[in-house]
Amino acid sequence: MTGSGTASYRRLSVPERRAQLITTALGLFAHRAPGDVSLDDVAAAARVSRPLVYRYFPGGKPQLYEAALRSAADDLELCFAEPQTGPLTGRLTAALDRYLAFVDGHDAGFSALLRGGSVAETPRTGAIVDEVRRAAAAQILKHLSVPDPGVRLRMMVRTWLAAVEAASLIWLAEGKQPPLEELRDWLVDHFVALLTATAAGDPQTARAARAALALEPADGRVADLVRRMAPVVADAGHLLAPRAGGGRTHGT
Amino acid sequence: MTGSGTASYRRLSVPERRAQLITTALGLFAHRAPGDVSLDDVAAAARVSRPLVYRYFPGGKPQLYEAALRSAADDLELCFAEPQTGPLTGRLTAALDRYLAFVDGHDAGFSALLRGGSVAETPRTGAIVDEVRRAAAAQILKHLSVPDPGVRLRMMVRTWLAAVEAASLIWLAEGKQPPLEELRDWLVDHFVALLTATAAGDPQTARAARAALALEPADGRVADLVRRMAPVVADAGHLLAPRAGGGRTHGT
Repeated sequence: MTGSGTASYRRLSVPERRAQLITTALGLFAHRAPGDVSLDDVAAAARVSRPLVYRYFPGGKPQLYEAALRSAADDLELCFAEPQTGPLTGRLTAALDRYLAFVDGHDAGFSALLRGGSVAETPRTGAIVDEVRRAAAAQILKHLSVPDPGVRLRMMVRTWLAAVEAASLIWLAEGKQPPLEELRDWLVDHFVALLTATAAGDPQTARAARAALALEPADGRVADLVRRMAPVVADAGHLLAPRAGGGRTHGT
Repeated sequence: MTGSGTASYRRLSVPERRAQLITTALGLFAHRAPGDVSLDDVAAAARVSRPLVYRYFPGGKPQLYEAALRSAADDLELCFAEPQTGPLTGRLTAALDRYLAFVDGHDAGFSALLRGGSVAETPRTGAIVDEVRRAAAAQILKHLSVPDPGVRLRMMVRTWLAAVEAASLIWLAEGKQPPLEELRDWLVDHFVALLTATAAGDPQTARAARAALALEPADGRVADLVRRMAPVVADAGHLLAPRAGGGRTHGT
């Protein structure tokens, strides 16, 4: 009970104080590994006493870490909640802009959390991360307008999200290279490529892909991707065999 | 010192006994979460006494778990070590056959390890998993014949591997659906699609992609993928704008 900072203590209501402590903790956990943040650090940054922090979070650092993570998860879940209008690539671009801004702004904490093995990890922190993943997958399936997605489409969306996570971690480990906009555009291209390849083997995904492609403008992201891919496949004419009137033939 | 099973104890040399305990432990950790396997279980399965297990692994379960994981990691690292001849998709198919057979044969242990938050997790177990990932990425870059890969190509390979891991976990969670061969073929398609889309924005990847496509046979996996993708893009003619003689044009 050193009492330092009690002046500011008196001014905040209980929910306000709680929110302030969570915001302060999140700010510290964002740029340092959980193991490198102590309750004293949080108390000092919030200009309150350590016993005050314990009064709000009797469970100590694990409880405060979970609350900070809970708050971050609520933000992250909103990333993919984009209006369902316009071309799909535009919606994905907007969602990724928000997601990657979060990654950029919570770099060390994001890495520590997703790389696992963190001292602050609990079964509950893992559950919160899984909840964010499930919410993001549900949002993307909504954008694809598929009410009852089968295993292939669900697997496609969730593996793409895993790729987004992995790319974010690599991006942080590589000193935030390539530039964020390039990373974002590449992840959108990745989605389009994966959607089309998955559509090649699954009728439900094929319907979703055809509907999505129909909405893409002739001067948009997908048309640009097709143009940029052309020189790559230009020498592979032997793979572009004559097609049986657009019907589905099956080789190998 | 209950002494049960000491008859079999006398017959094995020290390295043999160690190897037997690791193999036994791996068999148990493969199909149960680490928290559900006790040293007594390992001792019983190996038909030796608990003190004997401790003599070989004084660190108890964490040490035995690490040794079992180390042994599994050595197997996994060999999965992608495929001769560098023939079409790339054939090599990936062979590597994925081995990898997915491992996933199939170590289902519960694989999930528990990669989902994290396991009671047996240590910083060292995380390092072993990362080592497997690095080894797999290095093997795939070798198959792409790129000696000094840039950040985009490395990111492409590592995000695909993350997608393979995620797909494996989802496959296990979905009761091993779709059938393993379908999952494998889809992951190969995923690689081809991602390689081509990444090549659209990165000259180094474009060289690797062109070289890889040149090796693919006209009746092979890629030609089949192109044929199956045709009906998906058939209605999206507005995205296939006239190209400037195969040169690289840049829209948007």
